[in-house]
Amino acid sequence: MALPDFERIKLARLQRRIKPHLDAIGAALDRLTDSDIELAREVGRHVRRGQGKMFRPTLLLLSATSEGQVPEGAVEAAAAVELVHTATLVHDDFIDDAETRRGQPAVNVKYGSATALIMGDLLYTRALQHLARLELVRPYHLMTDAAVHMCEAEMLQVQTRFSLDVDEDTYLRIIYQKTASLIECACRIGASFLPDGDRYDTVFQSFGRQTGLVFQITDDIFDYLGDPRRLGKPTGRDWEEGRITLPLIAAWRTAPPQDRQVLAELAATRDPEARSVSWPQVQAFVERHGGVEYAYERARGYGDEAKDALANLPAGPQRELLTTAVEYVINRLN
Amino acid sequence: MALPDFERIKLARLQRRIKPHLDAIGAALDRLTDSDIELAREVGRHVRRGQGKMFRPTLLLLSATSEGQVPEGAVEAAAAVELVHTATLVHDDFIDDAETRRGQPAVNVKYGSATALIMGDLLYTRALQHLARLELVRPYHLMTDAAVHMCEAEMLQVQTRFSLDVDEDTYLRIIYQKTASLIECACRIGASFLPDGDRYDTVFQSFGRQTGLVFQITDDIFDYLGDPRRLGKPTGRDWEEGRITLPLIAAWRTAPPQDRQVLAELAATRDPEARSVSWPQVQAFVERHGGVEYAYERARGYGDEAKDALANLPAGPQRELLTTAVEYVINRLN
Repeated sequence: MALPDFERIKLARLQRRIKPHLDAIGAALDRLTDSDIELAREVGRHVRRGQGKMFRPTLLLLSATSEGQVPEGAVEAAAAVELVHTATLVHDDFIDDAETRRGQPAVNVKYGSATALIMGDLLYTRALQHLARLELVRPYHLMTDAAVHMCEAEMLQVQTRFSLDVDEDTYLRIIYQKTASLIECACRIGASFLPDGDRYDTVFQSFGRQTGLVFQITDDIFDYLGDPRRLGKPTGRDWEEGRITLPLIAAWRTAPPQDRQVLAELAATRDPEARSVSWPQVQAFVERHGGVEYAYERARGYGDEAKDALANLPAGPQRELLTTAVEYVINRLN
Repeated sequence: MALPDFERIKLARLQRRIKPHLDAIGAALDRLTDSDIELAREVGRHVRRGQGKMFRPTLLLLSATSEGQVPEGAVEAAAAVELVHTATLVHDDFIDDAETRRGQPAVNVKYGSATALIMGDLLYTRALQHLARLELVRPYHLMTDAAVHMCEAEMLQVQTRFSLDVDEDTYLRIIYQKTASLIECACRIGASFLPDGDRYDTVFQSFGRQTGLVFQITDDIFDYLGDPRRLGKPTGRDWEEGRITLPLIAAWRTAPPQDRQVLAELAATRDPEARSVSWPQVQAFVERHGGVEYAYERARGYGDEAKDALANLPAGPQRELLTTAVEYVINRLN
């Protein structure tokens, strides 16, 4: 059961304004996930049934037009961005051993790990092929950069798993590369379709980056507090799987030695069972030392920076709509 | 212990002629597998230590020049092709649960499956990013097409695993997409650097494709006969893991009903233990019904077609060197 969700309603209202384009992206995604190979087609349909909020394509479309006219290339590029996002989810679910994704079984659970690996590869390469075929040169430059960033972040995350030595800088690098880089990429690809896109590239870069950081910090806070939107969603997955995120990093930094000592002992095991048992203690530790408040404050700060970046755009509907979009992200926290 | 290997010596002699360029590709690969992320760097070095014969880069270089002058872009593109090849090996070893690769532990064995998945993704995306950054537009196009082909082949292979219904056409599609498409891609990328590359594109396409088919059929024959080059290399891996290849397809097609019946019963189990036990019977079945001879004959045919394609090139050192290269592939069978 969901609480009334005003922010989601706001996003939905915003998306209604660009609905024909979002529908066109959906149709492109249907085509790009289709195949004459039965298994690929079946898994493709499974993945499409779990379509998300289309947040990245929405940002791309809003970035692509200041006049309401969306260029066709932007629609196709937005489909490619969403496809890359989907590929990372398929591979992530395998890496994290996730059971479900968007209310249905994860690909690795339903079809096995080999098929999940291949499906992720197929979605990735199809997306990049799509941009190449349409000769969308700037988008595929930006996209390959973002793709490398995302892979590096996964590697860094594996390397630093379970380590309380992860500091805020490392955390920021991980979430920038893992999450914010694709959102930044979506915004910059969008802006590349503007007649004076070059001029505004750094604006959209900054806007996308900060928005992405808010997005991921918020998700990481939800793992401590619970997502107010999804009552009963379990917390503590990050702790259990050894991902050390901002609330814990901040709490750890300010905690006195004896408190640290206790946490370090809890953190010493990699056994999910044992970590699950210690979760209430970890949650209390983070609360006691203001970890969530600190993360919240940082997220707010990045949100302000995202809005500041928009101040460099000409006043008009584009700026307003992008402001609504970033407010949706910021207000997920309230 | 290896037998004296004249074909390998021939390839080595050919590669000596382009050694400075192959060294430059090696240096590019060192750079492309380096990282400021410790784990990525370590796995990158592990992968580099297992460097193969550089067959694809060799074909690319030979295709790129009729005058002996190799353009710098060709060296960089060859590194990208080899990197994509390496990425597929890392993912393949995970899919096939392989223990070793080129004499050292497979990435999935040494570093775990999550790291193998991420490393493959990283190598893939780095290769495409490299081509994008160097503005190698035509190579980028060809490479994304080949990458999609390879992923599709993996999917088709999973779909048809263990099935005796796989016919020769399906088999050919799988090996074309899985193996030949990247070799074809290497040759076409090479040719794109020729001053009159467009004119010869279909020649290199045909040459690369047929060479790749010979290459894979030969590997599949080795799995029945044993590779004469590597005494004691175990046979029967394909059967054990459910890959139905040309020798078995051909034997199955010509076998009488009562013989087929026996084989169908052996094929009904997916248990590797049981399949390993039945391997001598399968080998005898294939021998009895001329499966290897048939595959051998087809490989020879594709080899002839590859050489025929070269007849369309102007006489000169390029044609001669490429002939040597395809002969190396054909003669692996002798």
